[in-house]
Amino acid sequence: MIRAGVVGASGLAGGELIRLITQHPELELTFLGGSTSIGKRPAELHPGLRLDLGVTVQPVTEEIADRVDVVFLATPAPVSAELAALLADRVPAVVDLSGAFRIRTPELHDRWYPKVKRRADLVDRFVYGVPELIGDRLVDAPLISLPGCYATAITLSLAPLTLGLGLNLKTVVVDGKSGSSGGGAQLRTGELHPYRNGAITPYAPTGHRHAGEVRDFLEQARPGKIGSLSMSAYGVSHVRGLLTSSYVFAGQEFDPRELQRAYLRFYKGHPFVRVRRHTETLIPVPDPHVVLGSNFCDVTVMHDEDDGRIVVLAALDNLVKGAAGQAVQAVNKRFGLPEEMGLTMQPVMPA
Amino acid sequence: MIRAGVVGASGLAGGELIRLITQHPELELTFLGGSTSIGKRPAELHPGLRLDLGVTVQPVTEEIADRVDVVFLATPAPVSAELAALLADRVPAVVDLSGAFRIRTPELHDRWYPKVKRRADLVDRFVYGVPELIGDRLVDAPLISLPGCYATAITLSLAPLTLGLGLNLKTVVVDGKSGSSGGGAQLRTGELHPYRNGAITPYAPTGHRHAGEVRDFLEQARPGKIGSLSMSAYGVSHVRGLLTSSYVFAGQEFDPRELQRAYLRFYKGHPFVRVRRHTETLIPVPDPHVVLGSNFCDVTVMHDEDDGRIVVLAALDNLVKGAAGQAVQAVNKRFGLPEEMGLTMQPVMPA
Amino acid sequence: MIRAGVVGASGLAGGELIRLITQHPELELTFLGGSTSIGKRPAELHPGLRLDLGVTVQPVTEEIADRVDVVFLATPAPVSAELAALLADRVPAVVDLSGAFRIRTPELHDRWYPKVKRRADLVDRFVYGVPELIGDRLVDAPLISLPGCYATAITLSLAPLTLGLGLNLKTVVVDGKSGSSGGGAQLRTGELHPYRNGAITPYAPTGHRHAGEVRDFLEQARPGKIGSLSMSAYGVSHVRGLLTSSYVFAGQEFDPRELQRAYLRFYKGHPFVRVRRHTETLIPVPDPHVVLGSNFCDVTVMHDEDDGRIVVLAALDNLVKGAAGQAVQAVNKRFGLPEEMGLTMQPVMPA
Amino acid sequence: MIRAGVVGASGLAGGELIRLITQHPELELTFLGGSTSIGKRPAELHPGLRLDLGVTVQPVTEEIADRVDVVFLATPAPVSAELAALLADRVPAVVDLSGAFRIRTPELHDRWYPKVKRRADLVDRFVYGVPELIGDRLVDAPLISLPGCYATAITLSLAPLTLGLGLNLKTVVVDGKSGSSGGGAQLRTGELHPYRNGAITPYAPTGHRHAGEVRDFLEQARPGKIGSLSMSAYGVSHVRGLLTSSYVFAGQEFDPRELQRAYLRFYKGHPFVRVRRHTETLIPVPDPHVVLGSNFCDVTVMHDEDDGRIVVLAALDNLVKGAAGQAVQAVNKRFGLPEEMGLTMQPVMPA
Repeated sequence: MIRAGVVGASGLAGGELIRLITQHPELELTFLGGSTSIGKRPAELHPGLRLDLGVTVQPVTEEIADRVDVVFLATPAPVSAELAALLADRVPAVVDLSGAFRIRTPELHDRWYPKVKRRADLVDRFVYGVPELIGDRLVDAPLISLPGCYATAITLSLAPLTLGLGLNLKTVVVDGKSGSSGGGAQLRTGELHPYRNGAITPYAPTGHRHAGEVRDFLEQARPGKIGSLSMSAYGVSHVRGLLTSSYVFAGQEFDPRELQRAYLRFYKGHPFVRVRRHTETLIPVPDPHVVLGSNFCDVTVMHDEDDGRIVVLAALDNLVKGAAGQAVQAVNKRFGLPEEMGLTMQPVMPA
Repeated sequence: MIRAGVVGASGLAGGELIRLITQHPELELTFLGGSTSIGKRPAELHPGLRLDLGVTVQPVTEEIADRVDVVFLATPAPVSAELAALLADRVPAVVDLSGAFRIRTPELHDRWYPKVKRRADLVDRFVYGVPELIGDRLVDAPLISLPGCYATAITLSLAPLTLGLGLNLKTVVVDGKSGSSGGGAQLRTGELHPYRNGAITPYAPTGHRHAGEVRDFLEQARPGKIGSLSMSAYGVSHVRGLLTSSYVFAGQEFDPRELQRAYLRFYKGHPFVRVRRHTETLIPVPDPHVVLGSNFCDVTVMHDEDDGRIVVLAALDNLVKGAAGQAVQAVNKRFGLPEEMGLTMQPVMPA
Repeated sequence: MIRAGVVGASGLAGGELIRLITQHPELELTFLGGSTSIGKRPAELHPGLRLDLGVTVQPVTEEIADRVDVVFLATPAPVSAELAALLADRVPAVVDLSGAFRIRTPELHDRWYPKVKRRADLVDRFVYGVPELIGDRLVDAPLISLPGCYATAITLSLAPLTLGLGLNLKTVVVDGKSGSSGGGAQLRTGELHPYRNGAITPYAPTGHRHAGEVRDFLEQARPGKIGSLSMSAYGVSHVRGLLTSSYVFAGQEFDPRELQRAYLRFYKGHPFVRVRRHTETLIPVPDPHVVLGSNFCDVTVMHDEDDGRIVVLAALDNLVKGAAGQAVQAVNKRFGLPEEMGLTMQPVMPA
Repeated sequence: MIRAGVVGASGLAGGELIRLITQHPELELTFLGGSTSIGKRPAELHPGLRLDLGVTVQPVTEEIADRVDVVFLATPAPVSAELAALLADRVPAVVDLSGAFRIRTPELHDRWYPKVKRRADLVDRFVYGVPELIGDRLVDAPLISLPGCYATAITLSLAPLTLGLGLNLKTVVVDGKSGSSGGGAQLRTGELHPYRNGAITPYAPTGHRHAGEVRDFLEQARPGKIGSLSMSAYGVSHVRGLLTSSYVFAGQEFDPRELQRAYLRFYKGHPFVRVRRHTETLIPVPDPHVVLGSNFCDVTVMHDEDDGRIVVLAALDNLVKGAAGQAVQAVNKRFGLPEEMGLTMQPVMPA
């Protein structure tokens, strides 16, 4: 068994990690870390998880190195930056779910995360990316940084165009729609049920930093392919799951009939990405409602004949494929386990 | 009192017309028309409207001309095309809420409404547009056609750019998000609560005809200002209200600091359009949740410095400003009443 | 015009009072009081109310007596107890929406509101009750206390049995189901959207104090009619509106065929109580969804043949008939205006 | 591997059975039956289940006996009555999720299921009950009938009182609150999202037949313990999960301090029933939101001092513990597998 620790145990991603670790045949939860909620059991923090795991929330110190083989950091970026420095070289694998180590280019990092100071040497040692796209680099990686929920969906939407078809994307406009769990569960008036239910909240109409993360990653993977990439993000009236709409204007000719095939080819052998036709089932897809609780990202590509626009839609559960599930997927690869181990749950739908 | 008839009385827009007419000091409901539900009282069709109005649903014939001064057609476009032919010249004012007479350019109409055959002479006689934008043309107009809910929001979003500032809009991408009442209340599996609740349904990812309506209108008002205008539409997990996000790339230089002022200036004297700053109140606006039940359209314009994108957001209640309320507003202008009469209700929020 | 002040202007009931006062032809908003939010305009506190009323939130002092004819207290009970003492005899009418003066019997008050100390002489001077049930006692009343949202629904449910039919109610079990606005909009984890949406929260499974209020009122109106009256309350997954289910076992014989007639007779001439048959319209009623935004309370009485149980259901909008609307209704009676003035809005449905 | 067939494959319970069977290590899906949707793959009927299982929907005939070891009937009661007659003695295990064989007492069956004609000899051979309560009778049982979703929750709520403590329950009033998936996904106006969202629908205010099922079962298990048992059922504004509130007036003295212990004792060794304190975690429990997607039934018992009322609350996922999950649990017992096999998924929460 691989001994796993979760820091940030009281948050939504922390709770989801506990759920997935306890369902995983090769992972064992041996540590819960946090700065608040010290001494609490999982069942007190996460109403659904009435489990007797024999662990309670404890402060994170160097000594946890003896008790874990892998630590998941489900912490705010500044905390992750600190903890990564503490735990690197002490724990065999550190998996960070925050934005602390996502953006490699220093100027871009400073722009989007001005308050997150990180050790420069660690940046280079972190392996970052959607597991589907970074191949074997995760195997034995000691430090792993994972994209945010939106960035995962957008990267999976655009990669087949730039990395698969080699298209130049002159202009990309991303419209992201997310449920309320996307913002954690912070005590703010706007997050109260009466204000959030029934709403379409334009919480980030310009300048969402996930756009910076996607751009940095795709440009590093294949430079010069992306012109402008802008993003607007909205909160809608459900709890879990997000949809990204990527509206793409290519800077060159292409054959629209190739799109579907290119996506199928690109994601062949990647069980968590389901390339779907818009009308293949009872209701239009992709739809985050349709992947709820699972590690799937459903992707659909279409061509708008009117103006040559490529429309790529991607739906995922922000707490699973957008956070905890993807982290477990990365750990599976890290430790040489089958990629799907512990993640074979089908969507809970309708719910 | 102005005697009003509503055809399509059993639909959601029909119900909303009944609600607004009974609250209007100068309108009196004297006729309810329909093809199904013959003999039913409003209270049987609309659970909230337990009113004793002395009218029941009846078939529409020429004879209704004696009983009404104005007829609202809340009917599907093919039915509206027929009824307009029947009632024109017989009833002083016919107000059509469908798409039958919205698009003036014949080729465009045939493309987006291939099954809607309409009398060519009537097309020219219909006054079409968002009341705010067509000035005094509604006064004494015998035939009035009103834009759809999405088209209203998009037109109000873009008009200050093309008609106010005179900007060339090289590329416009519209992302529309609507509640479930936007699709009427049709018996389809995808509209059942278990499938629709919690969903983000990409029901029209390409080729929404409201984009055609907006383009036709704005181009007629000031030709040559719009390059590409494409639209994608989504259903989200609430009932009433929509938000449109218009992402605009201008084809010329402009001063972003002018945007806010230009919108304020453009809508000065138009009480139903509220030009709002994104952060002016407790929660981000615009948000359809915040205009619920009212005839307001909240509009916010922003500039995304990264790539020069103009972001215009508009929120409205699709059954009020997007349908019945706007129709009453037009009738107020038609009959020389104050534009706000019967429409002064404030939003019911939170709800 | 009657000059009205609202204290507790930043709360949900406060916002609803502002909405209704600005829509009322004879009320003018001349004062906004509060202890936080000093200096704020309504539009900053209530996103929907982008009104320029010329008032901002101010502390409450004796001096407001010069500026108002009526003051609505939408404040917590301890604050209301204090403000009532300050404003009684200075302002012509004080209308309290809190629980401070609802329970007349001192021991009962102390049990349910142990922290609310009130001046004994004021208790006797306060007129308390659902306006439909206290007849002309509101006319010229200087001090008015109104029942809570649940208590309004339950009292309207039971009064026709005890006061109309004169039945002994041996056992009454009330099950109350409310949307999230019922708890105000307090910053608590359980009120955050991710925790509240989709939930059925048993927040008060035993010992809800509204049961005490109802019992005290009905017993004073006609002593000895109620045996046991217990209540359990739940939060469900919408924002506005509540339903109470009163399950009644009578302590005597009665003719079940009389029930419907008795309710119709009891509420004759009371336009805000709609006695409805369960299946009279498209969907089962009563349902709070069906009275949204209006001052109606829909009531349905049924008889369960199996065990002789009387089932009385009542639905209302907790912020209107359960709070602000009922307060305006009481003020209409207080000042000799028509009971329905300013309250004729029909439900916004579906929403 | 145990070969499993699902009849009624296109319904919500059918889809849930497919989900759980494909996640079960010892079950293999070898047959899908139905009368509509012939030839369809699971992915076409259930948007989330994009699985290639090699089976499509086929009509049910005797020949399926060669292909299955167990058949789940997720069909309407009349269909189940027919299919049970066809498949009994041909298939090793038939598990019926409908009401066809739930009520043993003929008069009670005819009252609640007047249109369901069933073979009398089969009634006696069917083993019926919540798996927790019927002990080893499921082992090797050829015919199994399972309680409905409400009946499961109510039976688990009351059994510790009558069967554990041996209490006489003089009066029991049950108030049931369910999400929209409880009614299947039938094409009815009232089930459309605009009518159902935000609603509290009193769809069965009197005479719910699950009350009859519970009574029949508990009375057979221990006669004479239940006086009156009545039920009212409501639809609330979410999709999955139900809560039952059982308000119990005992017909004898009892020690309220014993209640909690009695429930813990009664469900010791039954992993799917979680006896919980009302305030043991972050939000009040039980709450169906907190067991979503899992096979848990959370139960809380309380005592209302005011009137001696016992309040028992139970929450479950109507499609899992209330249908498909419980059926798999029964099949585990039937075939001598560990009771929890394939059902160890933790709740997906928040969602």
